[in-house]
Amino acid sequence: MTCLAGRVDGYEVRIVGRVSSPLTDLSAAPRQGDEGGPEADLVFDPAVAEALRELAPGSEVELLTWLHKADRTTLVVHPRGDADRPEQGVFTTRSPDRPNPIGLHRVAVVSVDGTTVHVSGLEAVDGTPILDVKPALEPVADR
Amino acid sequence: MTCLAGRVDGYEVRIVGRVSSPLTDLSAAPRQGDEGGPEADLVFDPAVAEALRELAPGSEVELLTWLHKADRTTLVVHPRGDADRPEQGVFTTRSPDRPNPIGLHRVAVVSVDGTTVHVSGLEAVDGTPILDVKPALEPVADR
Repeated sequence: MTCLAGRVDGYEVRIVGRVSSPLTDLSAAPRQGDEGGPEADLVFDPAVAEALRELAPGSEVELLTWLHKADRTTLVVHPRGDADRPEQGVFTTRSPDRPNPIGLHRVAVVSVDGTTVHVSGLEAVDGTPILDVKPALEPVADR
Repeated sequence: MTCLAGRVDGYEVRIVGRVSSPLTDLSAAPRQGDEGGPEADLVFDPAVAEALRELAPGSEVELLTWLHKADRTTLVVHPRGDADRPEQGVFTTRSPDRPNPIGLHRVAVVSVDGTTVHVSGLEAVDGTPILDVKPALEPVADR
């Protein structure tokens, strides 16, 4: 495990895992998981194993990734890459190209094996860095 | 020495704006926007003005922030800070304390004035750095 002295308040992301997926080609990847993302493994760094405690199969989570192949200088895009549609600001689209290429993926946990979490419906390509996992929010009374 | 879980690969977030809010005290902040977050302004860097094009009042968005006061070394917490509840891994909670303290807030756009976006239901404190805005996903047919 890497120890980083004096960087506690740095605004640098830490890669806590990687996506392992049959998807390797960005151009073939569906644009959102509910349009056909395959099952995939989230392979976490053993250093964050404790953070996975009580993660249960069947739960819905928000997976945050760093879309490392994105263009961070892009501010406007044709939605869904369709040149026939007028350009929009990236903050009104889910384009991976944006100042901070953080992917937000709602996926279902299928199984947990140590620090490997199997999920369904993930459109991120193989090797995508993982930043965070959060429970999908349920109504207040259930939290 | 503080030891941070996860590797650094040189991915640095870019602060594209700041939250301007009457909330200044973290301990008084509601834990989620739907538990009573006030209205707030998202004050964007003019350098990313183009990314806001077509952002419309009335739209629901996912706001991503960097929770700069969080403890990035925390891996387990008592949910909702309640010492009577058993500890859980932070990936099963919405605790701000986690390896990458990225806040995920679903808010409604009330109005847009240049690079200032007025939103409702935001629980982030004044000065919180903004990383990204994404449209909240509607059913596929509506996109």
